[in-house]
Amino acid sequence: MQEKLRQHIEKIIPLSDEEFAFVLSHFTVKQAKKKTFLFRMGESVRYSYFVVSGLLTLIYHDDTGKQHIVSFAMEDWWESDYQAYFSQTAAGMSLQCLENTELYCLTLQDYRKLCSGLPKMEHFFLQKANAGHVGSQRRILSFLTSNAKERYEQLLQRYPALLQRVPKTLLASYLGVSRETLSRLGPSS
Amino acid sequence: MQEKLRQHIEKIIPLSDEEFAFVLSHFTVKQAKKKTFLFRMGESVRYSYFVVSGLLTLIYHDDTGKQHIVSFAMEDWWESDYQAYFSQTAAGMSLQCLENTELYCLTLQDYRKLCSGLPKMEHFFLQKANAGHVGSQRRILSFLTSNAKERYEQLLQRYPALLQRVPKTLLASYLGVSRETLSRLGPSS
Repeated sequence: MQEKLRQHIEKIIPLSDEEFAFVLSHFTVKQAKKKTFLFRMGESVRYSYFVVSGLLTLIYHDDTGKQHIVSFAMEDWWESDYQAYFSQTAAGMSLQCLENTELYCLTLQDYRKLCSGLPKMEHFFLQKANAGHVGSQRRILSFLTSNAKERYEQLLQRYPALLQRVPKTLLASYLGVSRETLSRLGPSS
Repeated sequence: MQEKLRQHIEKIIPLSDEEFAFVLSHFTVKQAKKKTFLFRMGESVRYSYFVVSGLLTLIYHDDTGKQHIVSFAMEDWWESDYQAYFSQTAAGMSLQCLENTELYCLTLQDYRKLCSGLPKMEHFFLQKANAGHVGSQRRILSFLTSNAKERYEQLLQRYPALLQRVPKTLLASYLGVSRETLSRLGPSS
């Protein structure tokens, strides 16, 4: 499990054994069962999560109780409600495990300590934040320019593994279409 | 003009005069007339832009020639096609001035030099990237959960000044609605 976090970070910055031990000392480990909520809307968001294995989904429940899937996060991804995390306000979304999931958890305080204690970790997080920003820009564009079928095909092309693991109802919500519409989009649905 | 960049950075990190001079040496200044394209789809993206005064819009032209507004950037905002900028690939979008605009321009090479030469700038950019990521997450959520009228009202509430400055056709495109639909949404349209 440690090796996965180390490999993930070392894709961007090299770490000595001492440095990695320092990094690791800022995280706590969590094993969460399928269906567990890591936080729910209205609760405090204590952690940013790194997924070692398993699958998370960020969910927004609207006033009518309908759920909207904001994102999925699988192995090697980071996830949280970042607005709530960085501003230490109540969660505007819920984060749920879709599978049994192994996580590294990082509080905002430890994130800051880690960055100031080992400045190259700031470089690492900057790369991840930029990549996240690019991914979001791409998704916004897909909402503006693509219909549901195209968005489905883009997802299939980028993350084929994800489609095998995500319940179709949630996939439909992620794409912003009804379950019935999704059924018409492809053989794998 | 220098004071605006300095104040913008000093909201996050303090800078000595020497440090600010070092920061400034990595930027070039550009004055661009209204309607100028800073880059067009297919061209290389040389810079990340900081807007000192004026207004930019990031535009995607689809295969049919229809334009989609991905974002607006006014004073104190950073803008670019970040996927193209960070990966040094051709622009997938165009960046245009909607007003006469004063800009600070930063190449990727200078961005990297600046971060390695003055590591606290990495901290600054991390804060901006995280804020950008949060803003994108909010916009994705608004596409999933809000109708055009709600998205219009959210925009009005967050950026009242923007609505006075942006042509209604572009505003409609940003919201993902037709110009006619926008006209029905509010008295200011």
